[in-house]
Amino acid sequence: MGKQAIGVVGLAVMGRNLALNIESRGHAVSVYNRSREKTDELIAEYPDKKLVPAFTLEEFVESLEKPRRILLMVKAGEGTDATINQLKPLLEKGDILIDGGNTHFTDTIRRNQDLAKSGLHFIGTGVSGGEEGALKGPSIMPGGQRDAYDLVAPILTEIAAKAPDGEPCVAYMGPDGAGHFVKMVHNGIEYGDMQLIAESYAVLKQVVGLSNDELAKVYTEWNEGELDSYLIEITSKIFGKKDEETGKDLVDVILDRAAQKGTGKWTSQNALDLGAPLPLITEAVFARVLSSLKTQRVAASKVLEGPAARPLGAERDAFIESVRRALYFSKVISYAQGFAQLRAASEEYKWDLDYGTIAKIFRAGCIIRARFLQKITDAYTKDKAIANLLLDPYFRDIAKNYQSALREVVIAAINAGVPVPAFASAVAYFDAYRSERLPANLVQAQRDFFGAHTFERIDKPGSFHANWS
Amino acid sequence: MGKQAIGVVGLAVMGRNLALNIESRGHAVSVYNRSREKTDELIAEYPDKKLVPAFTLEEFVESLEKPRRILLMVKAGEGTDATINQLKPLLEKGDILIDGGNTHFTDTIRRNQDLAKSGLHFIGTGVSGGEEGALKGPSIMPGGQRDAYDLVAPILTEIAAKAPDGEPCVAYMGPDGAGHFVKMVHNGIEYGDMQLIAESYAVLKQVVGLSNDELAKVYTEWNEGELDSYLIEITSKIFGKKDEETGKDLVDVILDRAAQKGTGKWTSQNALDLGAPLPLITEAVFARVLSSLKTQRVAASKVLEGPAARPLGAERDAFIESVRRALYFSKVISYAQGFAQLRAASEEYKWDLDYGTIAKIFRAGCIIRARFLQKITDAYTKDKAIANLLLDPYFRDIAKNYQSALREVVIAAINAGVPVPAFASAVAYFDAYRSERLPANLVQAQRDFFGAHTFERIDKPGSFHANWS
Repeated sequence: MGKQAIGVVGLAVMGRNLALNIESRGHAVSVYNRSREKTDELIAEYPDKKLVPAFTLEEFVESLEKPRRILLMVKAGEGTDATINQLKPLLEKGDILIDGGNTHFTDTIRRNQDLAKSGLHFIGTGVSGGEEGALKGPSIMPGGQRDAYDLVAPILTEIAAKAPDGEPCVAYMGPDGAGHFVKMVHNGIEYGDMQLIAESYAVLKQVVGLSNDELAKVYTEWNEGELDSYLIEITSKIFGKKDEETGKDLVDVILDRAAQKGTGKWTSQNALDLGAPLPLITEAVFARVLSSLKTQRVAASKVLEGPAARPLGAERDAFIESVRRALYFSKVISYAQGFAQLRAASEEYKWDLDYGTIAKIFRAGCIIRARFLQKITDAYTKDKAIANLLLDPYFRDIAKNYQSALREVVIAAINAGVPVPAFASAVAYFDAYRSERLPANLVQAQRDFFGAHTFERIDKPGSFHANWS
Repeated sequence: MGKQAIGVVGLAVMGRNLALNIESRGHAVSVYNRSREKTDELIAEYPDKKLVPAFTLEEFVESLEKPRRILLMVKAGEGTDATINQLKPLLEKGDILIDGGNTHFTDTIRRNQDLAKSGLHFIGTGVSGGEEGALKGPSIMPGGQRDAYDLVAPILTEIAAKAPDGEPCVAYMGPDGAGHFVKMVHNGIEYGDMQLIAESYAVLKQVVGLSNDELAKVYTEWNEGELDSYLIEITSKIFGKKDEETGKDLVDVILDRAAQKGTGKWTSQNALDLGAPLPLITEAVFARVLSSLKTQRVAASKVLEGPAARPLGAERDAFIESVRRALYFSKVISYAQGFAQLRAASEEYKWDLDYGTIAKIFRAGCIIRARFLQKITDAYTKDKAIANLLLDPYFRDIAKNYQSALREVVIAAINAGVPVPAFASAVAYFDAYRSERLPANLVQAQRDFFGAHTFERIDKPGSFHANWS
């Protein structure tokens, strides 16, 4: 019996779907799961597919061509370490472990360096697109040893999503943790996108008074223009969906407590470590947390009054267009922050990330896929070294033409008592970023006053301390 | 020769000032520093004070009464671990180490537990008030073994700041890392306070057009009312200060790049871990970071235009009063968030924090000392279990009466293109916290659509998944 070019360890839904995806491209795949039930189930469900079951890791490793290519799809964290420790004595120099789990990039850096000491390669890869993406074509963000990547690139390229122009959504991101880092920022951006859409919904519903049918129509229309994206598309569908039990609109039956799995939090925490301003995504993370305090909110709603409702000043259709512009410009600002974080990380961790390529592989397969990503690739193609996307001519024009709409929408929301933390944060970031002078001179004066922390001067270099009292 | 009741290791400015503070209350103090120069300098400068120098740790430990009380004032991090490791073999069961450094609370938890295995006590204590506070009376936030605290409480009580009613600003915070945690949140709150004041300055300068002389007057007046606090007091003084070199107003000579030492960042990162919404302080941390990107901002200011200036609609004096109200209400919201984080931490780490007492010991000695802290103590005295300070009748009244001013100021700033990230975040938090229904139902629908993450329903318990396509 021949040996397989690749094997998958961990047959939960993501692992099994990736195995089926690989198999569908004509490769036989070795499969192994810690408990044999999942393996048996998979084989029973797909008896005709070229899935080769192994029931011990020894057998599994033995079934693979050398250098072995092993895709780990196990529970991130201790599960990954445990699996690696069991595999390690069975492997030989040059073998390649690929971690496709939702791993924190610092763990990937550690594992990459540890395994390198034994001559083993370790690729940490982001895989985005959920269950369906895994099966039909995800966006794939691999990082690790370049030469090891080259040995797995053909298979990854075959199974990846294809962008509208046919390009596969996979590319080498950089050394050690670069792939999992890019996936983390992808997820943070996803939090921002979802919160911005939720705020546009709140404004359209509470300020304009749109019904769910009207909302479905609005988002369907928006999906035909600049905002064309997977998340806008599913939003339009959500507003058209009925609850099978009650016949009501399903969106109104769903409890307003947003859950999270922590990758948005990681993105914010890392931005704080890097000193990369990421306020919009962080507001989005906190908005989810605050939504989860439902009991407190219900109690507070009974004692904390807001402003009296006032009629919409602008015309309804014009205001809806303003919300669209506010959403698009805020999205631009969110991506400007996220890509600035990638730049800060690339410098800090010495990754030499290629921002244009990153935007490119987000164009299909993943949750944040959107027409506008091409604009980001274009911006970095024009100027690889651009410090912030807002400085690119296309995005500058968006800023110029859409900022008044964003201001208008935030002001209307504030007047109506509708919370728009991410929209408001977008305005503040934009105005701060374009401020030659911020009031931080006062902060420095205060710090020097109470703690002798010193300050810089505008007229000469150096650190200075004043005798304040 | 008699032995001393307490000794200080580490004679940089904070350590030496705390030693002098203790000595000034009538105690002889053993002093030790890794390099002997600092010890020699201190003794030479104060030959008549009861400071007993030691030049080896053996000699130092030998000079102390049992159980030994040793205050560590060394560089936080590896410096603390190194000092502990050197001291440990010299100590006996029941001896007490007190870490007064700027230590992350998780390190304090680890050290407290490690040393407990050898029968040694470890108190991690926040010390706030800078150099002058250390010398004359800081606010002190100790955590660790309760019985060990009782043995150091008399000295800590003597050296602590005294509140206006004479009460010393020190109290037992809770087990292991509780003291350093409270200090961390104190610092986060300080970041928020400083950013809010900076935003009030930006609005008064850029929207109202006040001169530095006028600003000095405004903050002096504000310091006589509800806003009465150390930070407002020094702000008023800062605007009156001339640069000795150029004769210009010093505040205008200071470069607008705010620095930081990381404790604000810790507070935000911990809030993200706890799932405690802390958007205002986090916006303040990011505002400092963004201010530091001066070169980028200057470049951006040349290509990213803002709105055209428009005349202030409201009367000038009325608008200044609105800024005062906006500042006070935002400050209330910031503290509501910070104290909610303390509550989340108390539950997570099983500390049983006493929030009213915490507000009490902030009333003097520390940077955030303010008249309004009494209102927080009052709120927790009335209802120890209150979930959020905004629900207390006093703060509810502030919300009711001041929210329109806060909305007015944020709107004026947005119209003028003046960034007010913390003010804007305060409005969004207030409106979200008092929202019975948030648009998070849409977020949950999206998550279930693309990732089968399930949702809850408003009409019955359980987790549900819809067939979206």
